[in-house]
Amino acid sequence: MRFWLECRKCGKQISFHINAGACSCGGALRVEYDLELVKHTLSKESLNNRIASMWRYAELLPIEKTENIITMGEGFTPLVPLTKAEQALPLGKLWVKREEQNPTGSFKARGFSVALSIANEYGIHKVAVNSNGNAASALAAYAGFAGMEAYVFLPKDCPWLIIEECLHYGAHTYLVDGLIQDAGKLIREGEQEQKWYNVGTMKEPGRAEGKKTMGLEIAEQLHWKLPEVIIYPTGGGSGVIGMWNAFQQLKQLGFIQGDLPRIVCIQETGCQPIVTALQNNDLFSPQSEDVNSSPTGMRVPYPPDGQLLVSIIRQSGGTALAVSQEEIRQAQLSLGKLGISSSPEGAATWAGLIRLLDQGGISRYNEVVLFNTSHAMKYRQFSHRTLPVVKSYKEWVGLNPS
Amino acid sequence: MRFWLECRKCGKQISFHINAGACSCGGALRVEYDLELVKHTLSKESLNNRIASMWRYAELLPIEKTENIITMGEGFTPLVPLTKAEQALPLGKLWVKREEQNPTGSFKARGFSVALSIANEYGIHKVAVNSNGNAASALAAYAGFAGMEAYVFLPKDCPWLIIEECLHYGAHTYLVDGLIQDAGKLIREGEQEQKWYNVGTMKEPGRAEGKKTMGLEIAEQLHWKLPEVIIYPTGGGSGVIGMWNAFQQLKQLGFIQGDLPRIVCIQETGCQPIVTALQNNDLFSPQSEDVNSSPTGMRVPYPPDGQLLVSIIRQSGGTALAVSQEEIRQAQLSLGKLGISSSPEGAATWAGLIRLLDQGGISRYNEVVLFNTSHAMKYRQFSHRTLPVVKSYKEWVGLNPS
Repeated sequence: MRFWLECRKCGKQISFHINAGACSCGGALRVEYDLELVKHTLSKESLNNRIASMWRYAELLPIEKTENIITMGEGFTPLVPLTKAEQALPLGKLWVKREEQNPTGSFKARGFSVALSIANEYGIHKVAVNSNGNAASALAAYAGFAGMEAYVFLPKDCPWLIIEECLHYGAHTYLVDGLIQDAGKLIREGEQEQKWYNVGTMKEPGRAEGKKTMGLEIAEQLHWKLPEVIIYPTGGGSGVIGMWNAFQQLKQLGFIQGDLPRIVCIQETGCQPIVTALQNNDLFSPQSEDVNSSPTGMRVPYPPDGQLLVSIIRQSGGTALAVSQEEIRQAQLSLGKLGISSSPEGAATWAGLIRLLDQGGISRYNEVVLFNTSHAMKYRQFSHRTLPVVKSYKEWVGLNPS
Repeated sequence: MRFWLECRKCGKQISFHINAGACSCGGALRVEYDLELVKHTLSKESLNNRIASMWRYAELLPIEKTENIITMGEGFTPLVPLTKAEQALPLGKLWVKREEQNPTGSFKARGFSVALSIANEYGIHKVAVNSNGNAASALAAYAGFAGMEAYVFLPKDCPWLIIEECLHYGAHTYLVDGLIQDAGKLIREGEQEQKWYNVGTMKEPGRAEGKKTMGLEIAEQLHWKLPEVIIYPTGGGSGVIGMWNAFQQLKQLGFIQGDLPRIVCIQETGCQPIVTALQNNDLFSPQSEDVNSSPTGMRVPYPPDGQLLVSIIRQSGGTALAVSQEEIRQAQLSLGKLGISSSPEGAATWAGLIRLLDQGGISRYNEVVLFNTSHAMKYRQFSHRTLPVVKSYKEWVGLNPS
């Protein structure tokens, strides 16, 4: 057996199955791999010959047959050094992981590449997701590519361009009068009747495994020496869970040694259950009221694995911060001027970085990776800018007296 | 000397210099490399160890010192097999080169990475471009990243999201009452007074060299066996010129053998000087009137190297086609349903493919590569869609009686 499921709570092992759900003890199941077997084919050197997508780590993804893989060129996104910023800020090294360069312009491509590969392996044709936006457009695209039917349910204040994307990829697209968990409830209620396969966060084993590849990539791209700090925008947090899992597996494979990065989770003020839990003796509970942050991927009052997230942050020596909408707006401008198109979520990591530098949470020797999870464009509100229109250089000079 | 300039007309060789301009005979200059020297370090095997960006081919790019390279993770974009379409259409193999996964969501990133690296090498701080859109936003981003000042001039009907991108990256952004060549004239008129470095199409040596990497990548990604047909959306056509150059260099290096691909250039009806030239005994002349196609990258009535483009198409055994706006619209829908976000330019290659299949220009054994040069989102017009808003599954079922 190359991979199986293991209960995070009681440790019980069961065969991998798409509908395994939770353990009989109620614990969440995680995919585990026979790492001794993995070592036979996966070495640092073997990676040199492989495809420049996240499927270069195929041994660590739960697909039986290569021909079932649904891939559109996701992952192995650039890790770009922000040299100008390094010079201006009191830190060691700074990189941005450019997840906006994935298909559909966001990191969500990774999860759905794996989730739909598994679905494909099990002959599934109808899939549904609740989402704040990027997961929906990614599912829509991957379902289109795989020839599956997609149903996506979004909060009604979802950015209009993302709604357009879902429609463009041919998904059945609906708005929900509520938040992401209300959309999730609708899908669960319809599961039996509609027979759609629910690919919501942590509802199936593939998406977290896909996100894991972000951790594998950082390690490989930094030549198997992890950075000291990872700053990550956090909603459901499956990216953090996936990356942490990646680091454990890389340690067991002997690919990396030493301390793991401090994980810093960024949320937006107004929806910050992880931040609140850290302030509250690490006791996580969903944020049931007063949710008033912007419609971004960070607005997840009920992260399904909140307690696990809190324990990973603590174990890593990291922290969680809530930044304001205005800090995010300023951060988008700062990153834009550095040539980086950042979504509000990606910009939030820059805002978090600035805050940590102010507070002394990052020193002038630290190596830091920011995650830019998606593209600025997706969140652009329509504007009728009045820009100067000119006919000639002479006219232009008239506008710009030096 | 690792690289130099050579006149395409009289063959004269001169030292590489950023301001070399044209040959004394009036011919255009092209960068040439000492390919014997290149062979010392560049082999098929050596590529396995290299970065997953277009800078993996650094020996074939005209930069003296590595530290001058301006790179944000451009190139080595996925070449994705469109398996569903292969099954549905009477052709052999079909791939799409996903150039929308570059920084700033378009293939233009490649050219500016090289152009601004050269500019950086010569200590230039102020750059200007005329553009139909994507080149402007790419220059804006790369200038931001490099710490240079960018001036971009766009036709006034440029898609609003691309204008927003330019502003976001901090470029001085102006609209011109005219077409791309009018914007180019403005820049040339201001060159002496403003001392901006003109990075317009074929105005400097870097952009065509950057585009060359698309050809290098296709060859490597298809394991050094080129496809039979490349379908490419054509405005200025520096992509075609660059790729053709790449194939020649790969032949000389012994990396590829045999026939080169047939090059099919796609234009939009209403601005089709290349198509017209092929109908007119291969005699190219700019389209000076009746320009009435959409504001996309294909709307270039005066391609600066039109005659060269025509001769490459002929030499390759290819052709040029003009497709209508409606064919492009339908093609965007078709590609969207396959999970691919395509710009009008990228979709035009699909429209061209369908036309060629109808006309028997592509057979059931041909291997075809389409170029999706940028992202659908960049061209999205604002829409106020009225989508159903629901509160619960019960309400949703009411909307969707099965």
